[in-house]
Amino acid sequence: MKTEAGTVLQDTLSRVKPLDEGLGELAQARLDILTKPQGSLGRLEEFARRLVQITGEKMPLLEKKAIFTFAGDHGVADEGVSAFPKEVTQQMVLNFLGGGAGINVLARHAGADVAVIDIGVDHDFGSLEGLITRKVVSGTRSILKGPAMSRDEAIKCIEVGIELADEFHKKGFKLFGTGEMGIGNTTPSSAIAAVITGRPVSEVTGRGTGITDESLKSKTEVIEKAIRVNSPDPADPIDVLAKVGGAEIGGIAGICIGGAANRVPVVVDGFISTAGALIACELEPKVREYLFSAHLSVEQGHRAILEKMGLKPIFELDMRLGEGTGAALAMLVIEAGLKIYREMATFEDAGVSESGA
Amino acid sequence: MKTEAGTVLQDTLSRVKPLDEGLGELAQARLDILTKPQGSLGRLEEFARRLVQITGEKMPLLEKKAIFTFAGDHGVADEGVSAFPKEVTQQMVLNFLGGGAGINVLARHAGADVAVIDIGVDHDFGSLEGLITRKVVSGTRSILKGPAMSRDEAIKCIEVGIELADEFHKKGFKLFGTGEMGIGNTTPSSAIAAVITGRPVSEVTGRGTGITDESLKSKTEVIEKAIRVNSPDPADPIDVLAKVGGAEIGGIAGICIGGAANRVPVVVDGFISTAGALIACELEPKVREYLFSAHLSVEQGHRAILEKMGLKPIFELDMRLGEGTGAALAMLVIEAGLKIYREMATFEDAGVSESGA
Repeated sequence: MKTEAGTVLQDTLSRVKPLDEGLGELAQARLDILTKPQGSLGRLEEFARRLVQITGEKMPLLEKKAIFTFAGDHGVADEGVSAFPKEVTQQMVLNFLGGGAGINVLARHAGADVAVIDIGVDHDFGSLEGLITRKVVSGTRSILKGPAMSRDEAIKCIEVGIELADEFHKKGFKLFGTGEMGIGNTTPSSAIAAVITGRPVSEVTGRGTGITDESLKSKTEVIEKAIRVNSPDPADPIDVLAKVGGAEIGGIAGICIGGAANRVPVVVDGFISTAGALIACELEPKVREYLFSAHLSVEQGHRAILEKMGLKPIFELDMRLGEGTGAALAMLVIEAGLKIYREMATFEDAGVSESGA
Repeated sequence: MKTEAGTVLQDTLSRVKPLDEGLGELAQARLDILTKPQGSLGRLEEFARRLVQITGEKMPLLEKKAIFTFAGDHGVADEGVSAFPKEVTQQMVLNFLGGGAGINVLARHAGADVAVIDIGVDHDFGSLEGLITRKVVSGTRSILKGPAMSRDEAIKCIEVGIELADEFHKKGFKLFGTGEMGIGNTTPSSAIAAVITGRPVSEVTGRGTGITDESLKSKTEVIEKAIRVNSPDPADPIDVLAKVGGAEIGGIAGICIGGAANRVPVVVDGFISTAGALIACELEPKVREYLFSAHLSVEQGHRAILEKMGLKPIFELDMRLGEGTGAALAMLVIEAGLKIYREMATFEDAGVSESGA
């Protein structure tokens, strides 16, 4: 970081503009003369309309797509909150680079690149082909004992995301997706959800990768204690991210903000990604208009955050893998809406009679 | 038809075998050693498992995919049940052949071919490149005045679907989708739904392409009267199809039966397609195991039929276009499940630690 911590963030937040209503009407007017009953493609039409508004282009084309999969470790993973050992974070980073993980398969299916970012893994990968190294922390500290990160570190995590969004925008990427890997990271996500939505911890805490009833009880207590210990200020999203968050969650917040500032639509994956998106929207509510919620995760806090943000997920397929898998799949549906808009014949072109209704 | 009406149908129904439980366990065992928490890909795993069971192949590949879009007209369309004039059926057939309709766009997106079949349009297209002509009726008769078709015609419609399923199976198509076009065809679909589910007509009747409150009331009365006039026997699905159904609905039932008999999975589109699938499943309940429900339509009777069949839709995107559009989109999600199964690395291959839970 060459500039003072927060300058990039503040500048980028100020670049986020509201969507143009006129463009939305223009897009809907075209959708309404295509050979189908008006509105009959439901949310596909909504996606097309919003893509026109977001990009500011009358005929947008989402050629290059990227999923940003941020990896980070969590001190709290040592407190028995996950079914998997912490080493899995670094092992999965290698799996991402090798192309064998769920996100690789689904991103290939969707025609998207996967950008794997070490933003906070507790391991030195050295120089590794394909890995984007932007390490802000080597794992967060245990939130049971104090803040996960310093305020400056939290800001830096968001700025890493913003800088990647700027960079990929310049390289011609037209659609972003968010993803993450970090053993233990449903714990900070539930903590963020509880603090910002004001709901009880037990209501927004789930089984993550698959813990037992007993571990779920203990995980809930860990989160309750972490919130007591750190007293994050619900009105200050950076404070929440620093005290009970995680590096990859900050990176995701940055992609949301950077996407919005560059007029690039962002597909937000599941629970952890949505916790990042929530931080972004708390910093600047207009960011929300640039986001698509990919799917409703099994993780029970997800619904609460989505409701708080007013986002409606595209899928509900009982998924809970993270990595950006839901975002990759949702990209195919969002693109379907755009293709409808771009490629369908009009009533006039096709010589089809319109509704008499 | 060279054989007596019903022979092909009976022979094909008898070819439908139950799914092999052992194959399902084999597929799940593979899914469980892939680098993800067990079950974390939710319904994608269910799709992969079922594709293995349906095809009987340990590593299925769905290279060639086809959507069957059956077109038919309805005498009842003259009773003010639709927002569009009847001519739109034939006009849309030309739009399908020209590649400008919603189904063309979404099938291209999904890498599927569209087979357009005239099974009952009230128009002589002559010889038209790309159109599959298997006309059983030139529009059905008004169900207000008597049966839509004779019993033999209804059977013949189903057999047209079966023969196409056989033919496309022989050509190497591995995944089928159903679709339809027929102005007025939510009316016979609601009638079928009411008769077979036993629910009141008003509960299973919706606005179709977009009729007013007043027209909805009149449409409901038309359906109630049609059921009174024809007294279809709920225990005899052919009787229901003949008396209050439609040619394209019969064709769809045939694709479901023929797909199942040939171990080809069938993706069932929205309300009208599901009415066809319901006829198929009433004839042979094992057909259901070969079906995927693409999406929950806005059309309110759809949920009732899906419940009756025990099928859970993949999407809920407020779509109500028909043609096979939802099926095309759902193919992309079903294939995603198969790719996960085929392409993901195992814990052992990737050197990733397994869950300690």
